[in-house]
Amino acid sequence: MSRGALITFEGGEGAGKSTQIETLKTLLESWGHEVMVVREPGGTALGEQIRTILLSHEYEKMSPQAELLLYEAARAQIVSEVIEPALEEGIIVLCDRFYDSTSAYQGYGRALGTSLIDELNRFASGGLTPDATLIIDLPVEIGLDRAGRKGSLDRLETAGQDFHEAVRAGFLHIAAQDPDRVHLIDGTRPLDEVAADVERIVTEALARV
Amino acid sequence: MSRGALITFEGGEGAGKSTQIETLKTLLESWGHEVMVVREPGGTALGEQIRTILLSHEYEKMSPQAELLLYEAARAQIVSEVIEPALEEGIIVLCDRFYDSTSAYQGYGRALGTSLIDELNRFASGGLTPDATLIIDLPVEIGLDRAGRKGSLDRLETAGQDFHEAVRAGFLHIAAQDPDRVHLIDGTRPLDEVAADVERIVTEALARV
Repeated sequence: MSRGALITFEGGEGAGKSTQIETLKTLLESWGHEVMVVREPGGTALGEQIRTILLSHEYEKMSPQAELLLYEAARAQIVSEVIEPALEEGIIVLCDRFYDSTSAYQGYGRALGTSLIDELNRFASGGLTPDATLIIDLPVEIGLDRAGRKGSLDRLETAGQDFHEAVRAGFLHIAAQDPDRVHLIDGTRPLDEVAADVERIVTEALARV
Repeated sequence: MSRGALITFEGGEGAGKSTQIETLKTLLESWGHEVMVVREPGGTALGEQIRTILLSHEYEKMSPQAELLLYEAARAQIVSEVIEPALEEGIIVLCDRFYDSTSAYQGYGRALGTSLIDELNRFASGGLTPDATLIIDLPVEIGLDRAGRKGSLDRLETAGQDFHEAVRAGFLHIAAQDPDRVHLIDGTRPLDEVAADVERIVTEALARV
C-alpha cells in the first residue's frame, strides 16, 4: 500500500478553511481516495482537552510561551497518534491548521521569533512535512468580520487587529520562503474560484507523492 | 527591596521532598523570611489543569514529546505568573520540582535526550536559574515503596522500574555536571539528618544571593 498524503490548510480567522476542506474531501472521495479530516489543536482526547484550554477565556493570563508549548503538545500527540498511522495506511489527511499556524500566530503574532519555533515544529511533528500547504489569504478586517458573524469569538479571535495583522504578515512571509510547498490563495474571491485553485494545487501535489 | 531566592527540590518518587520543604519553610520563616512554596507542574490555574492531565490515567497514549511540552507549558506559566513576581518582591520561593525534573524524567527516563530539553528549560523559565537545587537521592525500590504506601500511584509512578532507574541516573548526572548549583543529598538517612543537610546548603546559598 502506498503512503498517503498530508495537505494542510492555513490562514487567519474567517478565511473559509473549513468550507474548502469539506469541498475538497468530497472531491477526493469521488476520485476513490480515502480521506481523513483533522483539526489542530485537537483530533485526539489529549488534543481536544488542550484545545479547550487554549480557546477558553478562563486563562487570560496565559503567557505567550505557555501558549506556544500547548500548541506543540497537541501537535505532537495528533502526529504520533493519528496522522502518521493514517499516512501509513495510504489515507489522504486534510489538516485544518498545522505548524505554519504556530509560526504565524506565535512566532509573528506573539513576536516569539521563528528560530526555536522552527525547531519545536520539527520536534512535535516528528520531522513530517506537508505534501502541500494552502494558505487562504484575506485582509484582516474581512476575516474577523466573517468570524464574528459565526457567533461568539474565542480567546485568539479577540486578540486585536495588530495581532491579526502580524499573523497575516507571517503567513505571507512563510509562503514567500517556501514556494514549493506553500501556496497562497486569494480568499476574497467567490468560493468556487477558491475551490478551483485548491483542486489544481492538490492535484499537482498528489501527482508528486 | 532585595531580590528573593529560588530553591528547588528534586528527586524520584517517595524521596521525601514535601516533608523537607515544609521543615525548611518553617525554619526560614522563624528567621524572618517571607517564603512561598510552589509545586511543578501546577501553581497556577493553567498549571493545575495541565497537572491533572499529566497525572491522569485517561491519556495513556500520551506521546513522550507531548508530555515534555506540557511540563514546559506549565513551567512557563508558573515562572511568569508566580515565581518571577515573588522573587521581585524579595520572597524566598521553594519549588517542589523544577526544570531538572524535566531533564531527568523526559530527557533520561523517556530517552528524549538533553539538547532540546536544555533549550526548552531555558525558554520556559525565561532564563531563570535556581540559587540552589537539592536532589534528595534514594534507591528506586525504596522510593517507589514509600510512594506506594501513600495511596494509589499516578501515571508516572506506575511507569516501571527501568524508567525510574533511568530517571535516577539522570539526576546523578545533573548533580555531577553542575556541582555549584546542584547538591545531592542521601535520602536514606533519618529525616532530621536530611533536614540538617538542607539547612546547611540553603544557608550557604542565601549568603551568596
